[in-house]
Amino acid sequence: MINAVLIGAGNLASHIYRAFEESEKLRFIQVYNRRLEHIDFVSPDTAVTDDMDQLLDADIYFLCISDGAIAEVSKNLTFTNRLTVHCSGASAMNILNDKNRTGVFYPLQTFLKASEADFSAIPICVEAANDQDKEFLLTLGNEISESVQEIDSEQRAAIHVAAVFVNNFVNYLFQIGESLMEENQMDFSLLHPLIEKTVRNALQDSPKNLQTGPAKRDDKGTIEKHLNQLTNQEQKNIYKTITNAILEQYGREKL
Amino acid sequence: MINAVLIGAGNLASHIYRAFEESEKLRFIQVYNRRLEHIDFVSPDTAVTDDMDQLLDADIYFLCISDGAIAEVSKNLTFTNRLTVHCSGASAMNILNDKNRTGVFYPLQTFLKASEADFSAIPICVEAANDQDKEFLLTLGNEISESVQEIDSEQRAAIHVAAVFVNNFVNYLFQIGESLMEENQMDFSLLHPLIEKTVRNALQDSPKNLQTGPAKRDDKGTIEKHLNQLTNQEQKNIYKTITNAILEQYGREKL
Repeated sequence: MINAVLIGAGNLASHIYRAFEESEKLRFIQVYNRRLEHIDFVSPDTAVTDDMDQLLDADIYFLCISDGAIAEVSKNLTFTNRLTVHCSGASAMNILNDKNRTGVFYPLQTFLKASEADFSAIPICVEAANDQDKEFLLTLGNEISESVQEIDSEQRAAIHVAAVFVNNFVNYLFQIGESLMEENQMDFSLLHPLIEKTVRNALQDSPKNLQTGPAKRDDKGTIEKHLNQLTNQEQKNIYKTITNAILEQYGREKL
Repeated sequence: MINAVLIGAGNLASHIYRAFEESEKLRFIQVYNRRLEHIDFVSPDTAVTDDMDQLLDADIYFLCISDGAIAEVSKNLTFTNRLTVHCSGASAMNILNDKNRTGVFYPLQTFLKASEADFSAIPICVEAANDQDKEFLLTLGNEISESVQEIDSEQRAAIHVAAVFVNNFVNYLFQIGESLMEENQMDFSLLHPLIEKTVRNALQDSPKNLQTGPAKRDDKGTIEKHLNQLTNQEQKNIYKTITNAILEQYGREKL
């Protein structure tokens, strides 16, 4: 059995803990958090502590903490030469202090606190400073997911930007859609089938093959009509900027 | 039995024809198109014509043609006082010539030529100049869909702009995600689970409650890092513009 210690008790930490709950290869023997009362997700046989000097001996330490805290917490660890990994998409591996062996175990997903996560469909991106640890992390990833990938720090940085576009920004466009509907006494749910289809298409084919709309067909009349309809300046800016990007991509004259 | 004539043989026309194929209330007795060879989707008992003077007597005429052609085609009809509807999200009802009774029968969905459409889940937005025709169109909508809505021209114009945001623009953000992945030797499919989850969340809750990311939490350090990573100017512009909109919405200082 692989003994693991989890450092952190936030959203991601609790999901990673639960993901391994059924594992017969890895068990979390201890969870650390500055505030013990936040460790509200562990079973009784997992030790808890709020004292970094009391961390148990383990085969791997998961640092599931905010990006800003990773460097310092890894520096303050009182042991050396053990495997320490962070779970962040935003940070390079080398922000971990190299007095310990370093790696990354990054689940590429957005996690809501309340909801259950099905890890089997979540890509796990792993990286390690040495090959043996990399193999070890790949094995651990396979314990909980059917999609385990070797991803280096530079690639992970690209994933993190891409995720802003396809997750944060897409959600913001949904917000705009919702506002436009509600301002006109309609329910956002009227757009749900269109959204579902848009996404189903993009997951089945390359989105490059699926671009449609007034910008794609260089329909300046409709674009102008839409810009006149929009009263919110930020929405206008977004409409113009994405339209210009599409016009440019398809070799049309920009606005 | 309601007799209908379909004017047009494009993508939407063929989907509307097929949607009513099983109906016991409405049958298309004729399809018109300028070029007969494009009418490749009809059963043998449907007449076809390329001559506007040969349109059969019918209870309703569906103009499934491009927005630019609706006004002129409806003006050139040789009969009067019959029910004519267009099927467009982009046009007001009053572009139809009022020598005939006018209405709109707009399926709110994106249609790919090849794929089958399940109309039962597609909202049908109807409008009519008189109440009797409106009731009639609501009944027709219920023949093929479980979601039939009374939507006026102004609301439909808002839907059309909203659809650009949640369909065309969202697909464009997916394109950017795909490019960023491929430029770093990764497959777009690695982002699929994140995209699925993003959308599932937004369809279950209001996207207003789901906004996350560096802009939402006013993390200017990460924003700057991302902008430095992006090498494509259009992608940079989009990143900045949407980030500023989010910063503004949540009361933070813009870039």
